[in-house]
Amino acid sequence: MSFDTTFLTLFPEAFPGMLDVSIIGRARDQGIWTCETVDIREFGEGKHRQVDDTPAGGGAGMVMRADIMAAAIESVERKNRPLIYMSPRGATLNQAKVRQLASGPGLIVLCGRFEGLDQRVIEAYDIEEVSIGDFILAGGEVAAQTMTEACVRLLPGVAGNEESLEQESFETGLLEHPHYTKPRNWKNRPTPDVLLSGDHKKIEEWRQVQSLALTKARRPDLYASFKLNAATNARPKD
Amino acid sequence: MSFDTTFLTLFPEAFPGMLDVSIIGRARDQGIWTCETVDIREFGEGKHRQVDDTPAGGGAGMVMRADIMAAAIESVERKNRPLIYMSPRGATLNQAKVRQLASGPGLIVLCGRFEGLDQRVIEAYDIEEVSIGDFILAGGEVAAQTMTEACVRLLPGVAGNEESLEQESFETGLLEHPHYTKPRNWKNRPTPDVLLSGDHKKIEEWRQVQSLALTKARRPDLYASFKLNAATNARPKD
Repeated sequence: MSFDTTFLTLFPEAFPGMLDVSIIGRARDQGIWTCETVDIREFGEGKHRQVDDTPAGGGAGMVMRADIMAAAIESVERKNRPLIYMSPRGATLNQAKVRQLASGPGLIVLCGRFEGLDQRVIEAYDIEEVSIGDFILAGGEVAAQTMTEACVRLLPGVAGNEESLEQESFETGLLEHPHYTKPRNWKNRPTPDVLLSGDHKKIEEWRQVQSLALTKARRPDLYASFKLNAATNARPKD
Repeated sequence: MSFDTTFLTLFPEAFPGMLDVSIIGRARDQGIWTCETVDIREFGEGKHRQVDDTPAGGGAGMVMRADIMAAAIESVERKNRPLIYMSPRGATLNQAKVRQLASGPGLIVLCGRFEGLDQRVIEAYDIEEVSIGDFILAGGEVAAQTMTEACVRLLPGVAGNEESLEQESFETGLLEHPHYTKPRNWKNRPTPDVLLSGDHKKIEEWRQVQSLALTKARRPDLYASFKLNAATNARPKD
C-alpha cells in the first residue's frame, strides 16, 4: 500500500518539484508514495479554457469557478483520502496534523490561485482548509509540497532512522537542543565539554535544559503548553 | 535594483523549482528578482566532499559542519542582505515579517539537511533562524521557496493589482471573507443576494461581518489581537 497523493493545480509542471530530491524522491522511486497531478485547465471553458471569473459583488482579482473545480474534483478517484484545500483561511498545519495525515491513505490537494475558490465548492464537497502559516503565497502549490514533504518523511522506510524522528522539534513538545560536530574547536569556539564527556546521563540532562531554555526564550506559547502537559501528566490518577 | 536571492543548498537543482512558474517566474524573467544557488557540496572535504559529521555527545543523524558551512557562507557576496537559516527552532514567519524582508535588498538563505547546522556557525555569523511553521521537513529547501514566494509577490510590478494585496488575509489582521463568482446558482447553491445587489456599502459590510465571524470561529488568537488593536486605535489620544 503506497501513500497516494493527487494535486489539482494550474501548474502540473511544478510537481513533483521539491518532492523529487533526496529521501522524498528516493521514497517515490521505491513506490512508498505516488504523485499524480490533475490539470485544472483541462476542465476550463472556451477557447482559453477559462477556470475563473470576476468576484460577485466586485473587487480585485478573479475567483476559481465552483463548476469547473467540481469537474476537476469529480475526475479524481477518492480512495478514502482527505480532500484538502491549501488556504490561509484554514486550520494551521502542525506536527500533530502531519502525523494524522501521514497515517492515512494519502492526500488529494487543491492548489488555489488568484483570489481562491468559490465558497460553494468548498461547502458542497466538505473540503478541509489547511494553512501552512500566517502569510500569503502566489498559489497553493508550494504549500502543498511543504505539507506533502512533512507527511512523506514520516512514512515507514523513508527517513531511515526512527530515533531521529522522535527527538526533533515539536515531537517532544519543545524546540530541539543545539547540535555540534567536529572540529572540536572552531575559531576559538569549543564544543561544550559535557558533550565530549561520554557521560550519557549528563549529556541527556544538558540537552533537555538547552531545549527548555530555547523554547522558553523563543516560543513562550509552546513552553506554556509543555509545562501544562507536564503538570497534567504528573498528577496522580484517581 | 533587483531583489537578489541566494540559496545555500545541497540540492541546487531544486531551484528555482516552484519559483519558476506564474507571476513569480515572470518576475524573474523581467529582472525584478534574481535567483542564485551555492552548492554546499563544493565546500565539502575528501573524495566524497563530505559536509557533515556525527553529533558531539552521540545520538541519531548527522550535523552539518561549522567550518564547511562557514566556507560556503564566505563565498557569497553579502550585499547588505539578511542571512537566514530555515529552521523549526526559528521565529515563526508571518506576513509582517514577509513585508519586512520584501522591503529589503534580498535574501541569503541556508537550507539545512540532516539534524541541521553546528550551533557555532549560527552564532559566529549571527544567522537569523526563521521557521515557516510547527512541523518538520526533510530539508530547508521547500521552506526557503515558500518564504521567497511570499516576499517576491509583494515586490512592485509582480502581483499586478495592489488593491488585491491589501484586502487579503492577514493584511487586515483578519481572515479573508468568502469568494463567489458565476454561475449565480450552482447545484441549488445561490450566490448570496447582497453580492448581486450592487449596493457597495452593504457588500462591504457583509464582507466585514463574514471576515470577523470566520476569524472568530477558526482563529480565536487572531481575533483577540484584532479586537485589542481596534480598541487601542479607537482610544482618544491625550
